[in-house]
Amino acid sequence: MEHTLLEKIQSPADVKKLEPEQLPQLAAELRDTILTTVGANGGHLASNLGSVELTIALHRVFHSPEDKIIWDVGHQAYAHKLLTGRYDRFCTLRRENGISGFTRPNESEHDIVYSGHSSTAISTALGIAAANVVGGKKNYAVAVVGDGALTGGLVYEALNNAGRMKNARLIIILNDNGMSISRNVGHLAKNLAVMRSRSGYFRMKAAAERAISKLPLIGRPLANRLFKLKTDVKNMIYQSNFFEDMGVRYMGPIDGHNISQLCDALEGAKLVHAPVLLHINTVKGKGYAPAEERPSEFHGVPPFDVATGTLPEHGCTYSERFGEFVFTQAAKDKRICAITAAMSLGTGLKKFSETYPERFFDVGIAEEHALPYALGLAKSGMLPVFVVYSTFLQRCYDQILHDCALQQSKMIIAVDRAGIVGEDGETHNGLFDPSFFNGVPNIAVWSPCTYGELDKCFVNALYHSEGPSVIRYPRGSEPAVPADFEVTGNAYDVYGDPAAEIAIVTYGRLFAAAADALARLKERGVNVKILKLNRIVPIAATAYEELDGVKEVYFFEEAVRGGGIGESFGSYLLEHGLSPQFRLKAISNGFVKQGKSADLLAEFGLDSDGMVRAVKEGADRA
Amino acid sequence: MEHTLLEKIQSPADVKKLEPEQLPQLAAELRDTILTTVGANGGHLASNLGSVELTIALHRVFHSPEDKIIWDVGHQAYAHKLLTGRYDRFCTLRRENGISGFTRPNESEHDIVYSGHSSTAISTALGIAAANVVGGKKNYAVAVVGDGALTGGLVYEALNNAGRMKNARLIIILNDNGMSISRNVGHLAKNLAVMRSRSGYFRMKAAAERAISKLPLIGRPLANRLFKLKTDVKNMIYQSNFFEDMGVRYMGPIDGHNISQLCDALEGAKLVHAPVLLHINTVKGKGYAPAEERPSEFHGVPPFDVATGTLPEHGCTYSERFGEFVFTQAAKDKRICAITAAMSLGTGLKKFSETYPERFFDVGIAEEHALPYALGLAKSGMLPVFVVYSTFLQRCYDQILHDCALQQSKMIIAVDRAGIVGEDGETHNGLFDPSFFNGVPNIAVWSPCTYGELDKCFVNALYHSEGPSVIRYPRGSEPAVPADFEVTGNAYDVYGDPAAEIAIVTYGRLFAAAADALARLKERGVNVKILKLNRIVPIAATAYEELDGVKEVYFFEEAVRGGGIGESFGSYLLEHGLSPQFRLKAISNGFVKQGKSADLLAEFGLDSDGMVRAVKEGADRA
Repeated sequence: MEHTLLEKIQSPADVKKLEPEQLPQLAAELRDTILTTVGANGGHLASNLGSVELTIALHRVFHSPEDKIIWDVGHQAYAHKLLTGRYDRFCTLRRENGISGFTRPNESEHDIVYSGHSSTAISTALGIAAANVVGGKKNYAVAVVGDGALTGGLVYEALNNAGRMKNARLIIILNDNGMSISRNVGHLAKNLAVMRSRSGYFRMKAAAERAISKLPLIGRPLANRLFKLKTDVKNMIYQSNFFEDMGVRYMGPIDGHNISQLCDALEGAKLVHAPVLLHINTVKGKGYAPAEERPSEFHGVPPFDVATGTLPEHGCTYSERFGEFVFTQAAKDKRICAITAAMSLGTGLKKFSETYPERFFDVGIAEEHALPYALGLAKSGMLPVFVVYSTFLQRCYDQILHDCALQQSKMIIAVDRAGIVGEDGETHNGLFDPSFFNGVPNIAVWSPCTYGELDKCFVNALYHSEGPSVIRYPRGSEPAVPADFEVTGNAYDVYGDPAAEIAIVTYGRLFAAAADALARLKERGVNVKILKLNRIVPIAATAYEELDGVKEVYFFEEAVRGGGIGESFGSYLLEHGLSPQFRLKAISNGFVKQGKSADLLAEFGLDSDGMVRAVKEGADRA
Repeated sequence: MEHTLLEKIQSPADVKKLEPEQLPQLAAELRDTILTTVGANGGHLASNLGSVELTIALHRVFHSPEDKIIWDVGHQAYAHKLLTGRYDRFCTLRRENGISGFTRPNESEHDIVYSGHSSTAISTALGIAAANVVGGKKNYAVAVVGDGALTGGLVYEALNNAGRMKNARLIIILNDNGMSISRNVGHLAKNLAVMRSRSGYFRMKAAAERAISKLPLIGRPLANRLFKLKTDVKNMIYQSNFFEDMGVRYMGPIDGHNISQLCDALEGAKLVHAPVLLHINTVKGKGYAPAEERPSEFHGVPPFDVATGTLPEHGCTYSERFGEFVFTQAAKDKRICAITAAMSLGTGLKKFSETYPERFFDVGIAEEHALPYALGLAKSGMLPVFVVYSTFLQRCYDQILHDCALQQSKMIIAVDRAGIVGEDGETHNGLFDPSFFNGVPNIAVWSPCTYGELDKCFVNALYHSEGPSVIRYPRGSEPAVPADFEVTGNAYDVYGDPAAEIAIVTYGRLFAAAADALARLKERGVNVKILKLNRIVPIAATAYEELDGVKEVYFFEEAVRGGGIGESFGSYLLEHGLSPQFRLKAISNGFVKQGKSADLLAEFGLDSDGMVRAVKEGADRA
């Protein structure tokens, strides 16, 4: 498809210059660009196809960046990027130094905040609207949130605060596709489903409100009267409406793929001059049949064949292996139950959820709730396993302390995507958890390398330990380790010549690179041993004894340096009067930019080459 | 008052044996005990006086510990403690090795979980109820939550999940005293106020439901019919009800000081066999006139004169000094705004809130919301200052990363109660923040000792630095520091003889103890210098240069050891080939039990005595 309209759009001003009749063509060009690019680079597909018309309408009605549009999560902002001067570079989506798959202020003044985590947009937009009130500014703050984000408590906190800021020019767009990342959860989802079915009501009013919006002088009071009227009618029709309970005016629902209706409704919302929520119904994957049919699968995809809609097969992953193992154990032990925060597909729990629905709990994007909930399950005799991505686990740091470590009930936190994740970039790497777990008392944190170790850690955590355990593992698949490496399930292993005077210390998947480095160094006549930490918190005191007589220690860590395992290790050595030459290679700034994981690990010197280099340099210096 | 009933109660079974006519006397004895003990020991007063009748009713109707009562926060569980075998020891409340001011499973099987942080109880109770469903148990899970806790998103996440567990025997008691810790915030508070005023409705039904509850065989369907009826009537009377929007049945409101009505209502709630919320109206401080009149002041109190109701004056505190300074700056700089999470009194912001209401935001117990909200304020030109207790800041670890550090907008997080807090114990110490901030990129963390430094840190953060800053300071008042100590506002200071070969490294208020230790060691002829870190994250590289030639380094840290500043420091020394004798005294387990702060610091060797001892021991070993 030629992009005759899109290629000329440099900024939202150009979107406003188009005739209404041209907009469907623009939407088609946007969809084509999104589909082609995601097909080539991978990325979020279904959500972006669903928000094309909304994006056009927003940039017709609002004046970005004076009016500030906050995209919640930011995984649905591709069309926004294409309409704000990034069409030419869009082919670099999710590649190193390319366009991010989320909003990034360093890319464009139209990206107001760095985004990636869910349910924050209303809070930020409310802050903007509140500051505008204080400063006497007439600009609008617009938050675009999906229905999935509504399961997060942050949204409620924001709505509760919005409800009393009567003159804040805050417009919330609820982009409701009836799906969060996998399936919608919670009672509120049912309420939304009921609201969705009542679309006739608003359409009746849209024309009237549109007319009013053309009369700015008298528009506002009239529109307010219409709203009042609507509220009265609503109270007869609806039993209740969650949003109005929270003090936010409710408009909608309307068809989120009808640009003129969207523009009318947005113009109407602008007249309210108070926090207002516009409920729009969209179809996830809109315009691309495979994605419309299988929206969960097409939520986030690797590069795939657009013509056929066939997603590539991938080999076994840590997620799948863990999911499979939990499933197997659950068949034998009826106490085992699994909790996910809207990530049943990504965490390998699909089979579990289908086979043991009564023991499977998808709590929505509600990580904070997951742990005190797990505590309750444990207090009543269950063995809860909370499976969560490292980056989202950050959401429940307080609950890890208060509802897990302090309580000492047995539960397992399975931390998926621990380490560099690659193309999603700054907001999705799992680089902080070793550091924040490092200060948590009474908890054991395991960081296996192989699938065999993963299984063993799980069994140990379930049946051979007291209190809570954490098992962390990376995105993707098990790396190759030497055939002579034996899985022990111990707190640490020593690999290589125990008498070597040079030691590499590491944990997690980096062991594979270390073992490779060891072999290469051996070829050069450099004798190295590896101290492989399996339990990283707390480190076994006997592990340090393995370094008696060692002259050089190289610690490699796929995590932030500050407060991490390597610093604890180095400090312990010094405190105990061991003073080998000590080098620590970790990641100074955990906001690692997007790129291929292997490339990024290499850049940080955390691959086999980097390890060989570090040992060589160390030897030179010594 | 003699406690003729209370002194005989060893367990809830004894409560059940009393005649209904005796219960007002029991309530009076409970109030007397609570008042006397809090007057002597300090503690939470108003909330405990308000929940006396509720507690009696709960232990008459439910069978603890098979039925599990979860007290949210746990600061209102004094009567519960007195009725579950802890009357004799209650005089040790909040003292070292004494009864905790919160629920503690190591005290009693009737305390189901360790509590202290808000809004978790419904999640935990739901977990218990869900496990009971899976296990076919008929027991109840009861969550007691205050109206303040409702401002926390966790409650919403829990309700949203409760709403779809139709057969969970979950009973939520909303103990509504129209006050959270300071004043109630958010739109939902208004809804509650409306609901409160409708108490006539339920009373009509109470007698009928009580009768039904006596007929267990037919009771349930009948009660359900009554509920259905009530729902229909309610839909005519109420415009809407938040709780029913969330899928939880709503009962009430009823008088929370009428024991027989409470018992009736709880019996009714038991018949529902589905998640149900009972709304009760209570008076904070009930039965003690000074607390009824000034409930905020009597929320948490130091020891005071019960006869007069006069609270003791205290000297200036860090909180007040900080609040005063923010207030002064705000007069000069209209961009400065302050955010608190329901702690305007505790954080010294009262004057600010009264003078600049348009720039003061109490977001409720919604720490997660506070930071993305601050981001919005910053994005629209304000200078937000979020003032929060260290222990509650744990709630927004992800937001510190995602909505603060990553964004690089200028904002200040003022961390009050950083360090050991004393009598509140395990759940309230601020010992984790140095460790968790240690891994956060792009953020400066300051830990001043004196009020002068506190002011200087604030000015530096506002006007002489880019991006976000953190300023952390302890509970209580500035300690005495030597007259010759000069406030520099630099990243670190050196105090004492720069040529000394023994160095103490520390930060925050421990500097005062270190300076005292230095003077005492000098008297014994031991020459020591102090490297006082003011900015603890990141540590200035030049700070380490001050240790050139130093042979012994003693690092003292009032925070958890794992991932803390001391470990970073030790590791850095070793990495850079500095190998002095290194001793790190920090707190291994951050769940420090209750006691006087000074006593606890001494126990951990973090007072002047401990420092002198450590240096002496180090010298002996060397």
